[in-house]
Amino acid sequence: MTENNNTFKYLPNINSPEDLRKLDVKELPKVCEELRHDIIHELSVNPGHLASSLGVVELTVALHYVFDTPYDRIVWDVGHQAYGHKILTGRRDRFSTNRKLHGIRPFPFPTESEYDTFCCGHTSNSISAGLGMAVAAYLKGENRHVVSVIGDGAMSGGLAFEGLNNTSSTPNNMLIILNDNNMSIDNSVGGMRQYLLKLNTNATYNRWRFRLARRLERWGILNEKRRKGIIRLSNSVKSVLSRQQNMFEGLDIRYFGPFGGHDVVELVRILRAVKEMKGPKMLHLHTVKGKGYAPAEENAVVWHAPGKFDEDTGERLDSEPAKACPPKFQDVFGETLLELARLNPRIVGVTPAMPTGCSMNIMMEAMPDRTFDVGIAEGHAVTFSGGMAKDGLLPFCNIYSSFMQRAYDNIIHDAAIMRLNMVLCLDRAGLVGEDGPTHHGAFDLAFLRPIPNLTIASPYDETELRRLMYTAQQPDMGTFVIRYPRGRGSRVDWRCPLEAVAVGKGRRLRDGKDVAVLTLGPIGADVARMLPEGVAHYDMRFLKPIDEDILHEVGRRFPRVLTVEDGVVSGGLGSAVLEFMSDHGYACKVERVGIPDTFVEHGTVAEQRKICHMDMDAIRNMILNI
Amino acid sequence: MTENNNTFKYLPNINSPEDLRKLDVKELPKVCEELRHDIIHELSVNPGHLASSLGVVELTVALHYVFDTPYDRIVWDVGHQAYGHKILTGRRDRFSTNRKLHGIRPFPFPTESEYDTFCCGHTSNSISAGLGMAVAAYLKGENRHVVSVIGDGAMSGGLAFEGLNNTSSTPNNMLIILNDNNMSIDNSVGGMRQYLLKLNTNATYNRWRFRLARRLERWGILNEKRRKGIIRLSNSVKSVLSRQQNMFEGLDIRYFGPFGGHDVVELVRILRAVKEMKGPKMLHLHTVKGKGYAPAEENAVVWHAPGKFDEDTGERLDSEPAKACPPKFQDVFGETLLELARLNPRIVGVTPAMPTGCSMNIMMEAMPDRTFDVGIAEGHAVTFSGGMAKDGLLPFCNIYSSFMQRAYDNIIHDAAIMRLNMVLCLDRAGLVGEDGPTHHGAFDLAFLRPIPNLTIASPYDETELRRLMYTAQQPDMGTFVIRYPRGRGSRVDWRCPLEAVAVGKGRRLRDGKDVAVLTLGPIGADVARMLPEGVAHYDMRFLKPIDEDILHEVGRRFPRVLTVEDGVVSGGLGSAVLEFMSDHGYACKVERVGIPDTFVEHGTVAEQRKICHMDMDAIRNMILNI
Repeated sequence: MTENNNTFKYLPNINSPEDLRKLDVKELPKVCEELRHDIIHELSVNPGHLASSLGVVELTVALHYVFDTPYDRIVWDVGHQAYGHKILTGRRDRFSTNRKLHGIRPFPFPTESEYDTFCCGHTSNSISAGLGMAVAAYLKGENRHVVSVIGDGAMSGGLAFEGLNNTSSTPNNMLIILNDNNMSIDNSVGGMRQYLLKLNTNATYNRWRFRLARRLERWGILNEKRRKGIIRLSNSVKSVLSRQQNMFEGLDIRYFGPFGGHDVVELVRILRAVKEMKGPKMLHLHTVKGKGYAPAEENAVVWHAPGKFDEDTGERLDSEPAKACPPKFQDVFGETLLELARLNPRIVGVTPAMPTGCSMNIMMEAMPDRTFDVGIAEGHAVTFSGGMAKDGLLPFCNIYSSFMQRAYDNIIHDAAIMRLNMVLCLDRAGLVGEDGPTHHGAFDLAFLRPIPNLTIASPYDETELRRLMYTAQQPDMGTFVIRYPRGRGSRVDWRCPLEAVAVGKGRRLRDGKDVAVLTLGPIGADVARMLPEGVAHYDMRFLKPIDEDILHEVGRRFPRVLTVEDGVVSGGLGSAVLEFMSDHGYACKVERVGIPDTFVEHGTVAEQRKICHMDMDAIRNMILNI
Repeated sequence: MTENNNTFKYLPNINSPEDLRKLDVKELPKVCEELRHDIIHELSVNPGHLASSLGVVELTVALHYVFDTPYDRIVWDVGHQAYGHKILTGRRDRFSTNRKLHGIRPFPFPTESEYDTFCCGHTSNSISAGLGMAVAAYLKGENRHVVSVIGDGAMSGGLAFEGLNNTSSTPNNMLIILNDNNMSIDNSVGGMRQYLLKLNTNATYNRWRFRLARRLERWGILNEKRRKGIIRLSNSVKSVLSRQQNMFEGLDIRYFGPFGGHDVVELVRILRAVKEMKGPKMLHLHTVKGKGYAPAEENAVVWHAPGKFDEDTGERLDSEPAKACPPKFQDVFGETLLELARLNPRIVGVTPAMPTGCSMNIMMEAMPDRTFDVGIAEGHAVTFSGGMAKDGLLPFCNIYSSFMQRAYDNIIHDAAIMRLNMVLCLDRAGLVGEDGPTHHGAFDLAFLRPIPNLTIASPYDETELRRLMYTAQQPDMGTFVIRYPRGRGSRVDWRCPLEAVAVGKGRRLRDGKDVAVLTLGPIGADVARMLPEGVAHYDMRFLKPIDEDILHEVGRRFPRVLTVEDGVVSGGLGSAVLEFMSDHGYACKVERVGIPDTFVEHGTVAEQRKICHMDMDAIRNMILNI
């Protein structure tokens, strides 16, 4: 920060948007330039979400300049793009702590700043939350502006549509800014994307129409009462000129745009004009993800969250040596899926907007007809998979564990209840590190275990992931869940032969006496490395059906049992073992290690495990104390 | 059935759609007439969903006449309307067993009939599931037609939009039929509803355009390659003529309609024409809920599921005497909410399309500005409530327990993580009876318990519901869940003073020795009535925070403990008690009563409890055996 302070004129003096608003509008381009440099510099040494934040530098400055934040509300969607917002709202000094333990949070969050209006992290909630705030302002008689900023990727989420569908039913003046960079994390998909691309061809007419609307308003011709009529009239004019219809105005939301999103002076002008218009409004902006940093503009997928990099050369600095490392579970998933798909023609792949993150892009490149990126739409991903499964295909549907919370009913109602043959792969299970509390895959074991008909498994290591995937695609396996964490496992030699494991069967890794440790998933491999002599270790492999032979053996032979899982301590493996021991009258004392009943803050996975007493020192001490 | 067989000419001879397809198209109106009479007669003696099924009699006949079912797939949405479908597909003889134990299921379900293509019950899944089937047909090279029939109410659900958004990204020829009766169970709401109403004004132009399209196709001018171009061209023509834009065509779905939905001969003509057109298509039909039965046409909300009635007079026959009965929990909720809202100006009400079902209509009538029916949009209902809560209002958001599965992530991400002050009321918790496995509120205790920051309560009786509601709206109570079942409780004198209970505190209803019974919710009142002498009984009241004083007392004093809850036996109260006893080293043996690990079939609640060994005889025997 200090090195930039020597060259920066504005940023060191902006401690809040109040300071920003004292500047002349002509000074804003320079502020944007400094802000952009600051973000690039900070991110080059402290990894985070780069490309999204660069794309909204001008928008962020313009919003805080035009609106009276924090009284006016800016509701960010996802929050990948909120670094500029953080820097302008008094967090510049601490920005080097971004995503670190006890540092600035990865996404905006109300307890961190009064400028952060709502929880971000999962997409598509900004319209609904913003509408709630706008209604609250209306009912409380406050003359507050509410602005929701949503990306085009997030617009494919059902929640965004539900929000849009309700904006016109309730009196409000909210402004929805559609930040359209034709990207989510990967490319945007779906009819909405095509639609937004088409709207682009309309720019000239829309600019003309926007000017007309402002003039009519100034002359008193366009007022609240006439608004809906004018929308319809101007739509018909627009349709003649552009051969286009406008979906948003179909929902009685005034639409303006698309405008370019990188001319901050123009943005201020537009926002000022739109600000005072009554009723729900949408402003459609075109932005470039990674704007102003050439490597990021060229490949926004890679530069979404690039890790450390050389600011000058744009070279990405790999923090880990690539060779002789165990592979990432993601790569094992991606490569194994393609192998299996070559063997089994019924296999198809489904991902909601995360082909690169989960490595389904490997199959997507080889078999584009058999892979489906459905956009940010987790519910649809599962139900669509259900439809394919019903008619004889075998979908592997890969969704990050914390996002699978959005498809909970779909798992129950559109898969398990029919016992459809499909595989749900829950990536990013367990503690996830720097992305923090919204992104932990903490709840999946607990919320899935009560669902009848499900098979729930978690691999001990990479070869087990391959075996579980092979097992799951065998005939008539029903709805089969495989959950595994982000990152590297423990086996360099992971390309084992594809062979099945017995469903509902775990394995004894080591015998012992007095104490038995029961683990589920890769955390078991960590436990194995530090296990004291004489302690038995079982890899349960399946949470459901749970291996009753192992549990009977453990119940009979061991007075003390420790369960270890990378998930909430209530409702998962530990609870299942307790229930079994109680139901079968075993008197063994069961202790449970897992994520406690709290939202675990951001930090490294190692730090988070320590906080949760799930680190290997803590577990070893527990065992020694027994 | 027999009495109708004497007067019916067609229906007794239609054992499958194959038989229907042998008839001349001119005979279909008569078939519709008989089908309608049959439904009315059956429903008058065996209660079920009347109005929806009457609205689609002609559509059902036309679909099975034109399409080659079951090879072609009809995907019903919700399935309230599928009685005609059941009668035509070989289930007429058994139709009197509809919704009864071991009888015909309340909604279509694949294991019951090959004509039932997917699980129905929860709305808005038909487009996603149908798209999956269409893609499966495409990949397998099958020339199968897929038709999804979705209501206008279900169109407000995010899942429906996610499905629509994906229809154009994937090669398919699916037909989406929008069954538009301007109703869900209550009235439809939102921008989409307004939009569909506007489309109505377009009928003449659309008919003209439909004929043109067919002609162009016949002449070979309109083919797959030119389709998207033609859609755009015809939209611009349409916009000129009608001053309308079409949202669906914005998503590259061909749109036809709106047409009337009650002329079966015309419907056959239209469906035949649309059937062979390539690409995704939407056919918009206007139908009348309750069509052909005057009382139901007049008040479709009441006649959605009217109970028994006199077929001739339209008089509804109340199965229970109204006076001196305990009230329904729903009425207690509705009246208490209004009382509280009068005392606390921060209170607002939110319901996703169930104002009558949950009795929020009482507050809605008195305070229309402070109640929000957001349409079928559970996720939005919770996040919108979150936005209001964030800015100082106190939402009571009422969602049926099984539908709350659709807002699981919203509870975590848009409420609990910020510990927002809002009240989530889960109606229809526990076993629900005739609506069957899709509608049980079975999972809520298990899926909510692992979420940090939540308070989770369930009232013992009606006065406790009032007290919990009063408690929940006090300052700074955080995110407060109250779950209660459908139907009547146990107290006639329910209008107790509004007073708070201590959060996380249960109560000892009766002391005893040797055995303690711990119950949660109204099932506790049933237990109390049959409890053998000398058995202690605690009403836990809160699942979370659980009353540790009671649990310590029980752990110290009782060697045997029985937990009883109206929810899944894994993960709820029983598991919480087990975990506590284990964590605190109490050696008491805990037995758990609750819904077992299976999807419980339809029947009466009493029958379902018996099946689950949750009936009072079974519980009494368990206690006596201890």
